[in-house]
Amino acid sequence: MGFKVMSSTFGEIFRVSTWGESHGAGIGVVVDGCPPRVPLAVETVAAELARRRPGQSQLTTPRSESDTPEILSGVSEEGLTLGTPIAILVRNTDARSSAYDDMQHTYRPSHADYTYDAKYGIRAWAGGGRASARETIGRVAAGAVAKAALAQLCPDLQVLAWVEQVGDLRCQVPAHEVESSVVEANPVRTADAESAERMQDAITAARALGDSLGGVVACVVRHAPAGLGDPVFDKLEATLGHAMLSIPACKGFEVGSGFRAASLPGSRHNDAFYMSGDRVRTRSNHSGGIQGGISNGEDILMRLAFKPTATIAIEQETVTDDHRAATLRGKGRHDPCVLPRAVPIVEAMARIVLIDHVLRQRAQCGAL
Amino acid sequence: MGFKVMSSTFGEIFRVSTWGESHGAGIGVVVDGCPPRVPLAVETVAAELARRRPGQSQLTTPRSESDTPEILSGVSEEGLTLGTPIAILVRNTDARSSAYDDMQHTYRPSHADYTYDAKYGIRAWAGGGRASARETIGRVAAGAVAKAALAQLCPDLQVLAWVEQVGDLRCQVPAHEVESSVVEANPVRTADAESAERMQDAITAARALGDSLGGVVACVVRHAPAGLGDPVFDKLEATLGHAMLSIPACKGFEVGSGFRAASLPGSRHNDAFYMSGDRVRTRSNHSGGIQGGISNGEDILMRLAFKPTATIAIEQETVTDDHRAATLRGKGRHDPCVLPRAVPIVEAMARIVLIDHVLRQRAQCGAL
Amino acid sequence: MGFKVMSSTFGEIFRVSTWGESHGAGIGVVVDGCPPRVPLAVETVAAELARRRPGQSQLTTPRSESDTPEILSGVSEEGLTLGTPIAILVRNTDARSSAYDDMQHTYRPSHADYTYDAKYGIRAWAGGGRASARETIGRVAAGAVAKAALAQLCPDLQVLAWVEQVGDLRCQVPAHEVESSVVEANPVRTADAESAERMQDAITAARALGDSLGGVVACVVRHAPAGLGDPVFDKLEATLGHAMLSIPACKGFEVGSGFRAASLPGSRHNDAFYMSGDRVRTRSNHSGGIQGGISNGEDILMRLAFKPTATIAIEQETVTDDHRAATLRGKGRHDPCVLPRAVPIVEAMARIVLIDHVLRQRAQCGAL
Amino acid sequence: MGFKVMSSTFGEIFRVSTWGESHGAGIGVVVDGCPPRVPLAVETVAAELARRRPGQSQLTTPRSESDTPEILSGVSEEGLTLGTPIAILVRNTDARSSAYDDMQHTYRPSHADYTYDAKYGIRAWAGGGRASARETIGRVAAGAVAKAALAQLCPDLQVLAWVEQVGDLRCQVPAHEVESSVVEANPVRTADAESAERMQDAITAARALGDSLGGVVACVVRHAPAGLGDPVFDKLEATLGHAMLSIPACKGFEVGSGFRAASLPGSRHNDAFYMSGDRVRTRSNHSGGIQGGISNGEDILMRLAFKPTATIAIEQETVTDDHRAATLRGKGRHDPCVLPRAVPIVEAMARIVLIDHVLRQRAQCGAL
Repeated sequence: MGFKVMSSTFGEIFRVSTWGESHGAGIGVVVDGCPPRVPLAVETVAAELARRRPGQSQLTTPRSESDTPEILSGVSEEGLTLGTPIAILVRNTDARSSAYDDMQHTYRPSHADYTYDAKYGIRAWAGGGRASARETIGRVAAGAVAKAALAQLCPDLQVLAWVEQVGDLRCQVPAHEVESSVVEANPVRTADAESAERMQDAITAARALGDSLGGVVACVVRHAPAGLGDPVFDKLEATLGHAMLSIPACKGFEVGSGFRAASLPGSRHNDAFYMSGDRVRTRSNHSGGIQGGISNGEDILMRLAFKPTATIAIEQETVTDDHRAATLRGKGRHDPCVLPRAVPIVEAMARIVLIDHVLRQRAQCGAL
Repeated sequence: MGFKVMSSTFGEIFRVSTWGESHGAGIGVVVDGCPPRVPLAVETVAAELARRRPGQSQLTTPRSESDTPEILSGVSEEGLTLGTPIAILVRNTDARSSAYDDMQHTYRPSHADYTYDAKYGIRAWAGGGRASARETIGRVAAGAVAKAALAQLCPDLQVLAWVEQVGDLRCQVPAHEVESSVVEANPVRTADAESAERMQDAITAARALGDSLGGVVACVVRHAPAGLGDPVFDKLEATLGHAMLSIPACKGFEVGSGFRAASLPGSRHNDAFYMSGDRVRTRSNHSGGIQGGISNGEDILMRLAFKPTATIAIEQETVTDDHRAATLRGKGRHDPCVLPRAVPIVEAMARIVLIDHVLRQRAQCGAL
Repeated sequence: MGFKVMSSTFGEIFRVSTWGESHGAGIGVVVDGCPPRVPLAVETVAAELARRRPGQSQLTTPRSESDTPEILSGVSEEGLTLGTPIAILVRNTDARSSAYDDMQHTYRPSHADYTYDAKYGIRAWAGGGRASARETIGRVAAGAVAKAALAQLCPDLQVLAWVEQVGDLRCQVPAHEVESSVVEANPVRTADAESAERMQDAITAARALGDSLGGVVACVVRHAPAGLGDPVFDKLEATLGHAMLSIPACKGFEVGSGFRAASLPGSRHNDAFYMSGDRVRTRSNHSGGIQGGISNGEDILMRLAFKPTATIAIEQETVTDDHRAATLRGKGRHDPCVLPRAVPIVEAMARIVLIDHVLRQRAQCGAL
Repeated sequence: MGFKVMSSTFGEIFRVSTWGESHGAGIGVVVDGCPPRVPLAVETVAAELARRRPGQSQLTTPRSESDTPEILSGVSEEGLTLGTPIAILVRNTDARSSAYDDMQHTYRPSHADYTYDAKYGIRAWAGGGRASARETIGRVAAGAVAKAALAQLCPDLQVLAWVEQVGDLRCQVPAHEVESSVVEANPVRTADAESAERMQDAITAARALGDSLGGVVACVVRHAPAGLGDPVFDKLEATLGHAMLSIPACKGFEVGSGFRAASLPGSRHNDAFYMSGDRVRTRSNHSGGIQGGISNGEDILMRLAFKPTATIAIEQETVTDDHRAATLRGKGRHDPCVLPRAVPIVEAMARIVLIDHVLRQRAQCGAL
């Protein structure tokens, strides 16, 4: 089947199209192809957006974006999806401040200012325009729709992401022991309280220096049915990788054993099959729940590397758009570490990929 | 713009569709959307296929696949592309041997046998069917077409992949010093002769044990123009990642600093801009040549993790398709390490992604 | 190249996605893939919407939809396209009246009420929901964007539609003599004043009877470059036909000689080539400007059949959604003849198809 | 959902990609997305190709194309589809004759020679290359696959096309009375024996004059389930129209009342609903089985206009590719009337569209 990924559209049957610049009128998304008669309340969408929103704690940017979603179409008065496109709008309310004035002609290092100019010959410079993290609002809203559809079609399926690493600090809780309630209970969204404290300290220290930190987000999909994913170009890991590598600041993606697979011999890496009652299971899960591009019913395991926030309050060498040398020091209100806010975005993208594969499987092969 | 990825089709404007099972009549590919009047000789395609072919050295499987391509359409008698679909066929010649008989009902661990059954309720079991590595013949043939088209549109652009790691052994040559002539001169396709020798010994030792090894392939794209890649879902790294993660046995993908980015503070990770004559350059290249999803003209750097070959000559626990416990020992002729043969496949996928982005850029924004 | 048509998305490189129900929050469109740096004012969009709007004359429905567009994204403060998705929103302002209450459970004959229920098991019944003619607002807004892009890339190209037939009344002005100023000067949007008067009388008479009329819209594209359109499945006439047949109430489409071609022998139908200065021209134009699916530089000629408005103020036999016999008499404010308002929709769809083919031609074959 | 139409690919979930030039190595098609476990024999494909083949009677071209299909992939040894791409190859056997030499530099009137040159700057001139009617071999082979899949998913559904008009001669049998056995029993493939004789005489007379005739093919789809087709851009009639208008020589398409709708008042055109047992039916069928773009369970009725064959044995004015005036008289062996051979092509395209909508409906809305 076909996997439609366009500049601003993602998915084959469950199709997500986002639009909007950070300082334009608003940010939005259109979800087309959602099954009909799925309960969808605007509060559900708002709840997911609240998890992504800046200003949730002192760890993230103090901007107070209200991010109130409005469902403009595709849902009946009774709150059921109609099968037609679901359009969701979030107005931009945070006015452009003079903090952005430097951006107009000076390229911020490791941002998209220069490359947008190279590509389009024009850019919406205020706040990063289309390249702003506000673009992910559309993804998270669409992820809320995907979550509602999955709840109906695969009620047992669970998607859970958490911060596994901040800078050099790692959280060692194994994927199958991570609990959503623990993750949501700490501002770093890591998997245990002790790691959370250490990571929090590190982020606070980086902020004090005007610096920033990267890290790793892990994600597990539990109780996915076997049979999802298409061979060849649309392998489940390839479409998940595409989705995750499209998140701003993501620099790497691995599934199952990932880069560790390189060092293991086949005799240790192979996942032996055994019967568990009626069900074919594997003794280990280096495959990360995917074999030959298709889910095998085990936990789907992913890890994503995020680079440190590019905007820092330390002076940096750069150039202007008329090719003069310059220096720049970030003045806006920015996250010293995007990882906590990346968690709901990763979950949203995972759900968008999964519901699409569920619908594709239903199309070609019938009922799951 | 749109990035068409379907089960067996990849690309938006330069579209590659592969077909074929390992023991059916043949393996093939259709390339649609190639610019017209590009010189394309069948010998060029054959040369790339020869690099992918097993039996090139004692390091790879001794099967002697001849892999002779036939161009069935899309090229004029004078050897120029017509702008119409280019169909390339490679007949299967290696007859099914009794070595595969065990496969019919017993699931090979970490292969796609079980998941194909779970998805389709049927599978071409001989030699892995569609999930066989022979499927990559179509990718490499299409990569040869992409190479010819890039030679016309971006004559300076160069794609070069090499084996950076086999098991625990690493080759330390930095990306900007790797030379194609050195890579092709050793059977491991690594970047220096001394590493090649060590890796060769490790592979020979694994083979003697009936075991297998994984590793890492690195890839650099030199002299890519700035402006390639689309914001949001079709970022250059996201489409490259999709392409690479769709290669059989690939478990991880990173661009630029990749997973190392997680440990670096922003002050060290950011790539300062400076002017080099007329050209905007960066002092470092943690971005891996891509910022905001768009190429910035620096080297594009990628790394791919490959798991060890799943077929090993060591007895393993497994189950049959009627859910009985069983054991299996690989008897076919298989690569103890797929890495050397993965190199031309990685280059092919990189070129397929790049020519597509070049044509998309020309569509939306005009001449490069 | 690929022509992306989805339920609510149309186009391959210049992609138009509409959303919205007639009595939801609003109607909108997202245009992705538009070239950057194209001047686009909200007033231009508003002007095209005004041509589509009901209540323009006594011939059309007296509903006073204000249809004020807001450009939410994709355009710079200076009024230039950014290359990113252009989102346009038109709020619904006309409150649901009790005139629609009958629709909730009774299927209107020759409307989409029954088939939406059959497909989705749910429908937005007020005002026809997604199947309302208000959906075409998104098309017309996107057409205004296409017009702006064509003005930059093909400044000579002109798209002109007019009402050629209302009921049995025909306007006989040949396509090459039709003038935009004449068409826009009469409320029927036909090509001469005398026909306009007769058609106006017929529409008024139908309204008095509570009945409705259909007709034919003709469309000519002048000064299209040769070379647009793709062979095989994406012939220019096939994509134009798809676009036009997707307009509500369109029942037929023909290009050039159309159904008259059936009666002509080849010796009279063939268009002889001759040289006109440097340019290859044809003596006749039965081909309608398209040969082998590709434009030849002559006028592109199309005709579209529209059925009479389904909503009439005459009692009709029907059934309810719980399968009881019923009768229904239209009470809403409806057009007795949609043809005059169809003219800007036809032009919009023609421009959307043409700009897409222009960009595709640039992608594969370089500068026009 | 999405409807993927590319230059040489058609369909969203059931995707058909054709390739091949008339005098290259062969003609082929790849069908991706077919459901697994559908019985498919090469003989079934061959039988449909035999209906399309020239030389079936004296009415068509005397070329003896053998058109023997080979299924290269996607079908198991037991003759069941695997769910993977189905590649079918037909070798070209009819050698290029000197009859085509004139084509190399002289543009045939109303053929695609000039426009291919205008688009690509190159063309495969022998026998029309990609623009040859041989391209439809791929469509008919894919239609045979679609027929097999429909037989499994919609066993009652029937697609039947016939020649309704040749030149000025019409066959008056109403659509619901047309029988396949009658159509296949006469060489014109019209719906009654008496019309067949008259049409046969007219074609023979045209051939004697070196001239050609056009006509109309009608097509009915019986027992299609209600609910097929997508609102807005992918209406059932729009995708059917796209498919049909992409057939070489097709100049017009209409559904249900078609162009006759223009002359009918709404009170006569509307199809009243009534209950027939449990089933919602319509008293008349001006809608042609489609309302709001979605099937309503009544017969789907289509008509297609075909122009007369462009190749005639009468001298015509034209120009050469270096822009000199010339004359041309067709010397090849050509059909004086393509209509009889168009019948299986029309049926194939109808089935390709229908199976795709069936799979899309199953994807979004579950079991039919």
